Amino acid sequence: MNTAWIAVDWGTSKLRAWVMGTDGREIAALSSDQGMGQLAPEVFEPTLVELLAPYLSADKRAPVIACGMVGARQGWAEAPYAAVPCAPPGLSEAVRPSTSDSSLAVHILPGVKQADPPDVMRGEETQIAGFLAQQPDFDGILCLPGTHTKWVQISAGEIVSFRTVMTGELFALLSQKSVLRHSVSGEGWDDSAFEAAINDAMTSPQHLTARLFALRAGALLDGLSPDTARARLSGYLLGLELAGTRPYWLGQQVAIIGAGGLAQRYEAALTIVGAMVQVTDGAGLTLAGLTRAYAELQGQDR
Amino acid sequence: MNTAWIAVDWGTSKLRAWVMGTDGREIAALSSDQGMGQLAPEVFEPTLVELLAPYLSADKRAPVIACGMVGARQGWAEAPYAAVPCAPPGLSEAVRPSTSDSSLAVHILPGVKQADPPDVMRGEETQIAGFLAQQPDFDGILCLPGTHTKWVQISAGEIVSFRTVMTGELFALLSQKSVLRHSVSGEGWDDSAFEAAINDAMTSPQHLTARLFALRAGALLDGLSPDTARARLSGYLLGLELAGTRPYWLGQQVAIIGAGGLAQRYEAALTIVGAMVQVTDGAGLTLAGLTRAYAELQGQDR
Repeated sequence: MNTAWIAVDWGTSKLRAWVMGTDGREIAALSSDQGMGQLAPEVFEPTLVELLAPYLSADKRAPVIACGMVGARQGWAEAPYAAVPCAPPGLSEAVRPSTSDSSLAVHILPGVKQADPPDVMRGEETQIAGFLAQQPDFDGILCLPGTHTKWVQISAGEIVSFRTVMTGELFALLSQKSVLRHSVSGEGWDDSAFEAAINDAMTSPQHLTARLFALRAGALLDGLSPDTARARLSGYLLGLELAGTRPYWLGQQVAIIGAGGLAQRYEAALTIVGAMVQVTDGAGLTLAGLTRAYAELQGQDR
Repeated sequence: MNTAWIAVDWGTSKLRAWVMGTDGREIAALSSDQGMGQLAPEVFEPTLVELLAPYLSADKRAPVIACGMVGARQGWAEAPYAAVPCAPPGLSEAVRPSTSDSSLAVHILPGVKQADPPDVMRGEETQIAGFLAQQPDFDGILCLPGTHTKWVQISAGEIVSFRTVMTGELFALLSQKSVLRHSVSGEGWDDSAFEAAINDAMTSPQHLTARLFALRAGALLDGLSPDTARARLSGYLLGLELAGTRPYWLGQQVAIIGAGGLAQRYEAALTIVGAMVQVTDGAGLTLAGLTRAYAELQGQDR
């Protein structure tokens, strides 16, 4: 048994774990659909033990370092938010739920909160820790696209302020559950419609809800294609977001943390509005952030 | 059998009918959940005959005058849109689907379309016809609140232009299907939060999506009450709508056609932004509009 420690990213809908060896390498990467959202507090421990069983030993407590919604009030154990301005929380701020199983020693990292305007994150702060482990001198803006995209101002290794926007959830609701769902059902894309919609939304964000219905009317009256309508819907919502987050990206160095289509869309949108932008693949950053916390644990052991 | 004619309002989710007597009085008001949205074209006739059977006579075709989504492309028979500027379409523009049943003679009134920006209505034009039958000299703006609220410019008895906004559907999606659903689950209300949110949205509509997430964060961090959060959500969306429809209400006489809580909310919002507003109960207006079309039929018969 070479398990040194286990990194866990436990979000609302998914549980991911990396079993790390004593040589610093990854022994296994595991995942399950048993997200925090569907688990009662007493079920977290058995769920984790079941997933990790092949890599655990009853005579030694393997450190488990977890982040995400597992630390929410309705999660396994509440890890109270750290308040900005602050560095991404480390191991000394983690909460340690007791376990009946003797093969685990669990540490849950806190999220980060902001008082005014009120805002919260749980999980992204650990990606940010991973990013800062790789680029400790970064000074600028991080953009973490997702269902609830985070815009984060970083300076001197600290999260100074941040803002969460619901653009992704709005796009999902409108494209899947609203009267627009048939009008935007394309799988293709239309770059010029996207760019025009971004500019329209930046210029006059107040017309959002009328523009939305015009997608439906355009489909009925003019045969507006679902690909074009989909690109416009995305552009209207993303343009509204960029109009509202202007202080975050205007004249700033912006690093998008992400990958795939959504990160590309943010990159395109930010390029259209003239921002300086780089894309950093977010895939390894959560593990990098958890690894930084594990290094603290090793420091304590010395 | 005293049935003179039958008025029908056949929308996406509901079918309503009024059986009118030879003396001009209402004999019966009927309704069913068999909306246009769930019916194949061949099912409209038997559905209507079943609902109306007690009031029909095989030896005489009763005129049926219908409006709403029943005239859409996916409805019973397509009644092509009239184009603005135009009076609400009358009987001469109705489509007449043939029926196998000899007790009905069906007329379906068209909706109204606008080319630029693209927009459509089906059903509201008949409410407008009813409103104009009662107030033929009205010159100003009609606001018809609903899932898809319509703002309509009326002059000299004609619909000059109109704009549909998806505010109601956005409120329903966000309050029922989004991450905010628990945060805005109140049944109560908060007038001052509503007013402040209207003003915030009018001042800076671009902050919508960040303000939405702040409702969730406010609930988590500050114990923001569901009543206040619900009033704010409504105010943010309605304020965005008012910012976008400013040319429709600024310095204009606005008549809200509606009743109940939604109409009251529009009245409050328009009053907050300083518009001149009256509320007209919309309950009888569809029947009044259909009655106006029936009068045309009587004119033809003479």
